[in-house]
Amino acid sequence: MNVELIIIVMALVSIVTAIFYAARVVRIQVGAGGGSEKETAKLKEISAAIAEGAMAFLLREYRVILLFISFMTVLIYLLLDNPKTEFNEGIYTAVAFVSGALISCLSGFIGMKIATAGNVRTAEAAKTSLSKAFRVAYDSGAVMGFGLIGLAVLGMIGLFLLFTGTNVGVAKHILMESLAGFGLGGSSVALFGRVGGGIYTKAADVGADLVGKVEKGIPEDDPRNPATIADNVGDNVGDIAGMGADLFGSAAEATCAALVIGATASALADNNSALLYPLLISAIGIPASLITTFFARVKEGGNVEKALKLQLWISTFIVAAALYFVTDIFMIDSFQIGDKTITKWNVYTSVALGLFAGMFIGWITEIYTSHSYKPVREVADACETGAATNIIYGLALGYKSTVVPVILLVIVIVVSNILAGMYGIAIAAIGMISTIAIGLTIDAYGPVSDNAGGIAEMAELGKEVRDRTDNLDAAGNTTAAVGKGFAIGSAALTSLALFAAFITRTQNASKEMGEGAIDLTSIELLDPLVFGGLLFGAMLPFIFSAMTMKSVGKAALDMVKEVRRQFKEIPGLMEGTAKPEYAKCVDISTSAALREMIPPGLLVLLSPIVVGYLFGVKSLAGLLAGALVSGVVLAISSANSGGAWDNAKKYIEKTAGGKGSEKHKAAVVGDTVGDPFKDTSGPAINILIKLMAITSLVFAEFFVTKGGIVLNFFK
Amino acid sequence: MNVELIIIVMALVSIVTAIFYAARVVRIQVGAGGGSEKETAKLKEISAAIAEGAMAFLLREYRVILLFISFMTVLIYLLLDNPKTEFNEGIYTAVAFVSGALISCLSGFIGMKIATAGNVRTAEAAKTSLSKAFRVAYDSGAVMGFGLIGLAVLGMIGLFLLFTGTNVGVAKHILMESLAGFGLGGSSVALFGRVGGGIYTKAADVGADLVGKVEKGIPEDDPRNPATIADNVGDNVGDIAGMGADLFGSAAEATCAALVIGATASALADNNSALLYPLLISAIGIPASLITTFFARVKEGGNVEKALKLQLWISTFIVAAALYFVTDIFMIDSFQIGDKTITKWNVYTSVALGLFAGMFIGWITEIYTSHSYKPVREVADACETGAATNIIYGLALGYKSTVVPVILLVIVIVVSNILAGMYGIAIAAIGMISTIAIGLTIDAYGPVSDNAGGIAEMAELGKEVRDRTDNLDAAGNTTAAVGKGFAIGSAALTSLALFAAFITRTQNASKEMGEGAIDLTSIELLDPLVFGGLLFGAMLPFIFSAMTMKSVGKAALDMVKEVRRQFKEIPGLMEGTAKPEYAKCVDISTSAALREMIPPGLLVLLSPIVVGYLFGVKSLAGLLAGALVSGVVLAISSANSGGAWDNAKKYIEKTAGGKGSEKHKAAVVGDTVGDPFKDTSGPAINILIKLMAITSLVFAEFFVTKGGIVLNFFK
Repeated sequence: MNVELIIIVMALVSIVTAIFYAARVVRIQVGAGGGSEKETAKLKEISAAIAEGAMAFLLREYRVILLFISFMTVLIYLLLDNPKTEFNEGIYTAVAFVSGALISCLSGFIGMKIATAGNVRTAEAAKTSLSKAFRVAYDSGAVMGFGLIGLAVLGMIGLFLLFTGTNVGVAKHILMESLAGFGLGGSSVALFGRVGGGIYTKAADVGADLVGKVEKGIPEDDPRNPATIADNVGDNVGDIAGMGADLFGSAAEATCAALVIGATASALADNNSALLYPLLISAIGIPASLITTFFARVKEGGNVEKALKLQLWISTFIVAAALYFVTDIFMIDSFQIGDKTITKWNVYTSVALGLFAGMFIGWITEIYTSHSYKPVREVADACETGAATNIIYGLALGYKSTVVPVILLVIVIVVSNILAGMYGIAIAAIGMISTIAIGLTIDAYGPVSDNAGGIAEMAELGKEVRDRTDNLDAAGNTTAAVGKGFAIGSAALTSLALFAAFITRTQNASKEMGEGAIDLTSIELLDPLVFGGLLFGAMLPFIFSAMTMKSVGKAALDMVKEVRRQFKEIPGLMEGTAKPEYAKCVDISTSAALREMIPPGLLVLLSPIVVGYLFGVKSLAGLLAGALVSGVVLAISSANSGGAWDNAKKYIEKTAGGKGSEKHKAAVVGDTVGDPFKDTSGPAINILIKLMAITSLVFAEFFVTKGGIVLNFFK
Repeated sequence: MNVELIIIVMALVSIVTAIFYAARVVRIQVGAGGGSEKETAKLKEISAAIAEGAMAFLLREYRVILLFISFMTVLIYLLLDNPKTEFNEGIYTAVAFVSGALISCLSGFIGMKIATAGNVRTAEAAKTSLSKAFRVAYDSGAVMGFGLIGLAVLGMIGLFLLFTGTNVGVAKHILMESLAGFGLGGSSVALFGRVGGGIYTKAADVGADLVGKVEKGIPEDDPRNPATIADNVGDNVGDIAGMGADLFGSAAEATCAALVIGATASALADNNSALLYPLLISAIGIPASLITTFFARVKEGGNVEKALKLQLWISTFIVAAALYFVTDIFMIDSFQIGDKTITKWNVYTSVALGLFAGMFIGWITEIYTSHSYKPVREVADACETGAATNIIYGLALGYKSTVVPVILLVIVIVVSNILAGMYGIAIAAIGMISTIAIGLTIDAYGPVSDNAGGIAEMAELGKEVRDRTDNLDAAGNTTAAVGKGFAIGSAALTSLALFAAFITRTQNASKEMGEGAIDLTSIELLDPLVFGGLLFGAMLPFIFSAMTMKSVGKAALDMVKEVRRQFKEIPGLMEGTAKPEYAKCVDISTSAALREMIPPGLLVLLSPIVVGYLFGVKSLAGLLAGALVSGVVLAISSANSGGAWDNAKKYIEKTAGGKGSEKHKAAVVGDTVGDPFKDTSGPAINILIKLMAITSLVFAEFFVTKGGIVLNFFK
């Protein structure tokens, strides 16, 4: 069977599925479910404002990104323009880079379009039944899920065919290195998506809450709050576009890492069906996810959360089974990488290990962030003695929640490495996100439901409708936490795989250079250059978090001032007789996000390039390892502390105490601190570690041949 | 000149100096400075209660420590009882271990005794003048400073003479490894001192504040607050005994690491005067510090903070100059370690580098934690919008404050390594704390002044007296932050030096074993066992912090309940007509500290032993490196966030807003969160990284010969 063809067909199936779901969502008419004409008009007006704000942000963000892409393309061309071979690595890498970046942008655009169409239609469907509303939100998510992975797979197989078809004589491992540009492109867009989107959404959220809930005592999503539209826009730009770009990056990067490492094995390089195995994993996840969607249904009054979690389990088991046969058919019986013999079952075990480790990390995340379990309830109890003890307990919870995920990651790393070397780790990383179509569907479902609730509240739909959207939204919160667990777990494995690919690449490059090159056969932990890099790298996630957290703080402060101003200066606003100026708040978030995403972005992109150029490959290797290990721990703890504070507050609202009590006030402080933790700085670290690793991989040749100028100076 | 004799004489000079200062403090009669008989009686009563509480805690703590020492001694004997050589490493290491532990206990005991005598006498002297009060607090600190380093140096030179004198035929590097037991002993006591003391002091502090200041609105150290004696006891057990044990550990461990590494150079092993150079650095710090004390004076209305900081600079420059001559006279011109040739000036540059890096790290710490500078003022401004933004800004400040110290450490590591290999790093670590006598004097000065203020408040001495003690206390806060910077910087270098000694040791042991041994010549960063260890290790400081922070939270909760109970059940307490039951609060802190210090203690001690035994030396090396890099960053950020919140609150109290305002309430939340950060979890990480490294070093032989049983299983 022709593997390339199978992959292309699967990618097309995925895209068609996305189109099908999109059609099903858009078909729904706002107002068809009943309600007065005035109500319908209001629904349309509000959703239009959100859609407009989201699109305005996205377009302005893409302008910045386009500038950045142009700059990077030139940089790639200049730094990788290696005239010593006939194959011009610079041009091919640049092509792959631009493709990756544009496809990532396109995915974000599609996700945002459908989310801002799906939110109001979910609210509309909630007039009829929970089951129908669930379906609309789920379908909207599925457009993102299937569209994104379809485009990613199509892009990669297309580039693969282009590169191998036009450069028949060139060694596969060199071609695959150029393909890594695709991952860099995807991840660069993710940087801006995650950081910019994260700042946007939390500035709006914190600003809206601080004045609305705390000072004025009006509920969430109250139409009198000038920041409420910005808050709803934020859900889309942060959780849809940001999350999508993040996972797009993971998929692309893990695949590139596996291709780069795999291509060093001559048995794989000579056999396209085996070489393309990493892409096949993602491709086979598509029909598996498609089958899973048939099980997505909720009865009126049913348990939405259970239905969503079931989706993850079903897709995991189908993929695990399908991959068994795929491996048996397409992978060669055994091959050599270095002096390691790897059988196809070693490879299969690595995929399965990544797949199930992802599920377990998600499950542990839930235990630490859902108020159905003890940890969050302890944090809620700590609110009894005030905000300070709430913060102390919440931080401690986050720190503690890192233990099991770290141990699981260590097991995956050690075992898959024993089984299949660094190839095993890359394969495990792909395995972890092989169910990405379902994962993203559920992730995107969350903000769509959240928005639907907001729209229902603002349009003052009936209590029954609002109850249904609340029900949908609550389930989305839990799955969001699970999704974050996945995202960081896959980022860790992906980065490690990229790191391994980087080392492989530099060792080859140094060997090719022959005499005069630095000996890179061994990267010694105790080498001062390595250790210095390690310590410096371990600091980077912290300074990066500091930057993004302060950005949120600063932007929120601007937002608070504007909201206060409107309440003071617009007569009748509090009484509901006058309308607030929503657009001003949208503009504040937009400008702040675009302005504030630049410095952390530069930190991430320039750190590896500067360190590699000045101090050489060994320091850079240390830097990557240090950033990876401290970043993983900080990201997990930030995300889980934030999730726990959020749900501790919800728990207090549901149980004794309730809104307005001292205990609840203490809980709100934790929730507000947690917002940038869980939605800005925590998830952005995923991008930090992946992007630094892939930047190093793409520029590996440059660092070996021209890097380490400070060291040369001392020679 | 006989080097051993010089070192012994210097150690004795140090001890005599301590005795001299102690006599000067104790000579002061309480009540001699005027005041009514009733006032004098009250002074005596309060200070007796504090002294009694502190001593009771220390004795109970020492009982636990004695149990632990017995257990460890047996463990050392069993695991290191290597019958293949005539030199029984187990016995000698056990002797060194017991000596280190007992001397550390003795130092803590002396420090506590003089601090609890000095606090009331400082209050007494404050009746007369600032200058006199300053002198008493300073003198009390000096007893700790000079006593501790004198005993440490005496212990080490004594063991050195004993070991080398009784084992003439045995290679020096084997003897020096046994000497490392001294460092392990010191650091083990430090673990309990820092963790137990840290939990004690913050449980009392947070408990006293939450009810006293927040709920009842009575000032700090108000005699009506039942937890106020416990709070003052806490200053002594945490900041005196804990800090002292921490720095004692650093001094002992850095010296041991330098001796172990140095002894592998045959030129040093054959020449005692050169081999003992590390001890000579500490020894020469003693007269240098003694000269510095002559400059310690403050005029009435003078700037106390400036006087204290001047002390650090003077001692630094004197030591730097003195070491120039010492190096010239006692160090040999050049020697080889491995294939590196090291000149005496390379060694001197390394010491100087450590010495000045310490000063700069202290200076940076001050900039991030003093409200004279922008960072803390920004945090204070963030209180405008409530506790949540205060927390976000404070955490961001802590994260950001890691950049410069980390870069300084990287420079010291890389440069001293280029100059003198791993020996250079060990020497730099000793250099950083060569002014320890002055450093500790100033550190201990802080809690003595703080206590003096508390006693003056409780005994209701005049406003003038209280103003003077406030003045002394404020300066102590700044120098405490600087001291923490030093402590973590030296802990980082010390751990790295120990780590290097550990690697050296295991490589030798594996070579000696010959065939069948694991090849340890290279510890590859990308080896899955190493990388797995790295990731696991990076998680340890976080879980350790979580444990200690929650311990403080739990103990504070008990304290809050007890204080609330007393206010409710004791009639006339709030009116000042009845006395609270101080002893009950002291008992709560004591029991909580002793109970809660066990689990984190076991985590630190067992992690390296279990990992080394199960997964072998490579995983353990990864673990140490991971814990080191993430620990340094987390410790710096925790300490500085905490310090910044504290001073942001003080800044608000001094400027607009003032006590009782909403802004001040927001600041109090930050201060309360910061308490366990800066005084419990942050500083305890110093011990974590040092203790894990020295445990690995002491048991290195065991890990090489018997470790890695899980790996053997897979073979």
